[in-house]
Amino acid sequence: MAGLVAKKTQLIARTPEYFRDKMGINVHINHEVMAIDPATHAVIVRNHETGKEVTTTYDQLVFATGAAAARPPLAGIESSNVHTVSNLVQGELLKKALEENKSASAVVIGGGYIGIEVAEALHLQGLKVTLVQRPNQVMKAVDPEIGTILAEAMEASGVELRLGVSVVGFETADNMVTAVVTDKGNIPADFVVLGLGVRPNTTIAEQAGIPLGPKKAIKVDEHQHTDLPGIWAAGDCAQCFNLVSRQPDYFSMGTIANKQGRVAGLNIGGKKAAFPGAVGTAITKFMDMEVARTGLNEGQLNELGVDFVTTTVKGNTIPRYYPGSTPITVKVLAEKGSGRLLGAQIIGGEGAGKRIDTAATALHAGFTLEDMLYLDLAYAPPFSGVWEPLIIAARLALQQI
Amino acid sequence: MAGLVAKKTQLIARTPEYFRDKMGINVHINHEVMAIDPATHAVIVRNHETGKEVTTTYDQLVFATGAAAARPPLAGIESSNVHTVSNLVQGELLKKALEENKSASAVVIGGGYIGIEVAEALHLQGLKVTLVQRPNQVMKAVDPEIGTILAEAMEASGVELRLGVSVVGFETADNMVTAVVTDKGNIPADFVVLGLGVRPNTTIAEQAGIPLGPKKAIKVDEHQHTDLPGIWAAGDCAQCFNLVSRQPDYFSMGTIANKQGRVAGLNIGGKKAAFPGAVGTAITKFMDMEVARTGLNEGQLNELGVDFVTTTVKGNTIPRYYPGSTPITVKVLAEKGSGRLLGAQIIGGEGAGKRIDTAATALHAGFTLEDMLYLDLAYAPPFSGVWEPLIIAARLALQQI
Repeated sequence: MAGLVAKKTQLIARTPEYFRDKMGINVHINHEVMAIDPATHAVIVRNHETGKEVTTTYDQLVFATGAAAARPPLAGIESSNVHTVSNLVQGELLKKALEENKSASAVVIGGGYIGIEVAEALHLQGLKVTLVQRPNQVMKAVDPEIGTILAEAMEASGVELRLGVSVVGFETADNMVTAVVTDKGNIPADFVVLGLGVRPNTTIAEQAGIPLGPKKAIKVDEHQHTDLPGIWAAGDCAQCFNLVSRQPDYFSMGTIANKQGRVAGLNIGGKKAAFPGAVGTAITKFMDMEVARTGLNEGQLNELGVDFVTTTVKGNTIPRYYPGSTPITVKVLAEKGSGRLLGAQIIGGEGAGKRIDTAATALHAGFTLEDMLYLDLAYAPPFSGVWEPLIIAARLALQQI
Repeated sequence: MAGLVAKKTQLIARTPEYFRDKMGINVHINHEVMAIDPATHAVIVRNHETGKEVTTTYDQLVFATGAAAARPPLAGIESSNVHTVSNLVQGELLKKALEENKSASAVVIGGGYIGIEVAEALHLQGLKVTLVQRPNQVMKAVDPEIGTILAEAMEASGVELRLGVSVVGFETADNMVTAVVTDKGNIPADFVVLGLGVRPNTTIAEQAGIPLGPKKAIKVDEHQHTDLPGIWAAGDCAQCFNLVSRQPDYFSMGTIANKQGRVAGLNIGGKKAAFPGAVGTAITKFMDMEVARTGLNEGQLNELGVDFVTTTVKGNTIPRYYPGSTPITVKVLAEKGSGRLLGAQIIGGEGAGKRIDTAATALHAGFTLEDMLYLDLAYAPPFSGVWEPLIIAARLALQQI
C-alpha cells in the first residue's frame, strides 16, 4: 500500500507450482472446503472454477484456515470503497483504487496494528488520512502513556485522530461511501479501510463439532492436535498458550503461525514436537516511531486480577552525544512480591522497537526484575547507552516490589 | 576521532564540580595514589600540581583504577606520533594531530574492537589507513568466518589489512615514527595508533598484597569485595565471573564496570547486592557493518575442552522485499549432548548487531537450543523476517546435538 514493494509476487513466499514441483505437495487454489465429517473422515470441497463439489477423505487433517478481517454489520459496509487488507487480493483492490485517486481523503476505522500501518501507508501515498477509534487511545495492546506518544507522532505527521469515537454507519451514494457516520459527527471519505482486528476462520471447525477455545479459535494441545482424532490446527485459526498468564489465549501473529505449523507437521510426520506457547510479542511503527510490546499490559493484568508494579522510564536509544540518538520510552510490569517480569512496552525512534526481544526472552525465562538488572546487553555508543532503558526501568520497578 | 561529537565535554558524564555540588563527593583530580598499606589502612597520595605527597587513611577502599592500553616494549614506541586512545587526554592528542595533517597515512596496530573503531574513525577523517594484526583475522573475539566478513567490509571501504603480520619495531627520525617495521616488510606511517587491548591497572593492588585473578585483574567475590577486609574493586581493574564458562574471567566493558561499581557501592552503603557475572557480550561496527558476540567462541570452547556443535546461517535483517534489507550472518554454539547455548555471533547491516541481546539473555537463562526455537520474538516486515536467523541457526544446530 505504501508503494515500498515493486511487485505483488515478491510477497508470495511459495506458489502452487513451487509446492508441486519442489515439494511434491498438491495445492488446490480456488477450491473451498464447505464441510468436514469427523465420523467418516469426509471433506466436501467446492471447485470455484467449475462450481462442482466433490467429497474426499483424509487420514490426518490440518486446519490452517487463518483469520479474517472483522466487518461489523453496518449498512453501507459492503460498498466498493470500503476496504479490508487481510489478504493480497484485498490489498490489490485498495492499491488500484489509490492509484486512480491520489489526492483522496481516507478514513481508517480502527487504531490497532493494522489501522496504524494502513494509516502510515496511505499517508505515504499522500492521502489525507483520518483514523477513527472507539477506545480513547491508539494501539490498545499498549498502555495509555505509550499509546499517547504514538498518537502524538501520528498527529505530528498530519494524520487526524478521532479517538473515543464510535462509527455508527455510512452515508452512501451509488454504492459508494461518501462519509463515515460517527456518534460525534460525519467524516467525509473517498475511501474507508477497516482495521478492526481479525476473527479466526473456524466456522467449519465449529460445525464439525471441534471444540473451540478463546475468541472461538480452535482448541489445541501443545502438539497442535485438536480434541478430535486425526485433526490438527495451526496458525491464526488456532488458540495459543500464553506463557505469561499461563492460560490459553489467542494471538494472530505470523511468527506463531509458522512455529505452530512446523510443530503440527513434525507430529503428523512421526517426529515429536511440542509448542510451549507464546508471550504476546508484537511490533509496529508509524513513520520513524517504533512501538513494541510483550507479555501482559495493565488492562490484561487487571482483568486477570494480578497484583503488579510498573515503571515507565524515558531515555535515549543511544548516548545523546552520538548522532542519531532519539528518545525512547520503556515500561516494565512485574508481579508484586515475587518480582516476576510480566510485560514490557517500548516506544521510540530508530532501533527502539526490536529491543523488546530482550524482554520477550526474559519472559520465556521467567526472569524477575532482579535478573533483568544484571543482563549483559551489548553496549557501544552507536548502539546503546551503558545502562539500557529496559534495565533502568527494571531497577526502578524493583524498588516498588 | 571520527568527528561525530562536537565537544569533548559531551563525553564527560560527570565533572568533579558536579560530584562535589550535587552529590557531596570530593574528587581530587591530578592526584595519584602511590601505594596503600592494608595493615594500617594508609593511602599515600601524590598531588601532581604541588608535587607533595600526603598520607591519608580509609575505612573502606574501592579500587576503580580501570585498565590501560597495552604498549609493547619496542624501540620507538614512545615517539610523539604513536598514539593510544584509552582516555580523553590521549584522544585529544590524536585529534589535534589529525587536524594538522588530514591527508596523512595511518597505521593501526591491532585488529580488536579498538583497532577496528580507530580504523573507522581515521577512515572517516579521510586518512589512508593500514591495519596490522598478528593473528590471521580481525576481531579474534569472533570466529574466523565472521571475522572474514568484517575484513571484507573494511577492505571494500579502502582500509588496507595486513593480517598475520607482526610488528617488530619502528623506523624513526627526529623522535617521529616514519614507518612500522614488520616481519613482512616496512609500512610507511605519518601516525601510528595502538589498539593492542588493555591491561588492568593493578600494580598498586598487587604491591599491597591483594590477590589477583585472571589477567592480573583484582580477585573479587560477588559483592565486589577483595580478599582483604574493607577493600573492594569494580570495573576494568577487577575480575568478573563468566556465567557461561562458570569460571572467573576478565572483561573490560563499560556496562560491566557500571554494574560492578553499583554493587560495590550498595554493599559499602549497607545494602545487600550481588553481581552474578557476565556472559561476554560485545558489539562494534565498521561503517555500516555491525558485529556482535556473546558467550564463548570456538577458540575459547576448545581451550576449555568443551564438546560443542555450531551452525552459521546467512539470511537477511528484514524480508528481502522490504527496503533496507541487508545480509546478516548468525552463528550459534551449543554444548554437545545437553544442547545448552554457549555462544552466538552476528554480523550484518543496520539492525543486525543489537540482536545479540536475545542470545545474551538466553545465555543468562541457561537456555538450550530447543528453548531458542520457540522464542516469541518481535516480527513485522520493517523489523525482521518471520523466522529470525538466530532461531534458524538454533534449529540447524539442534540437528547436530
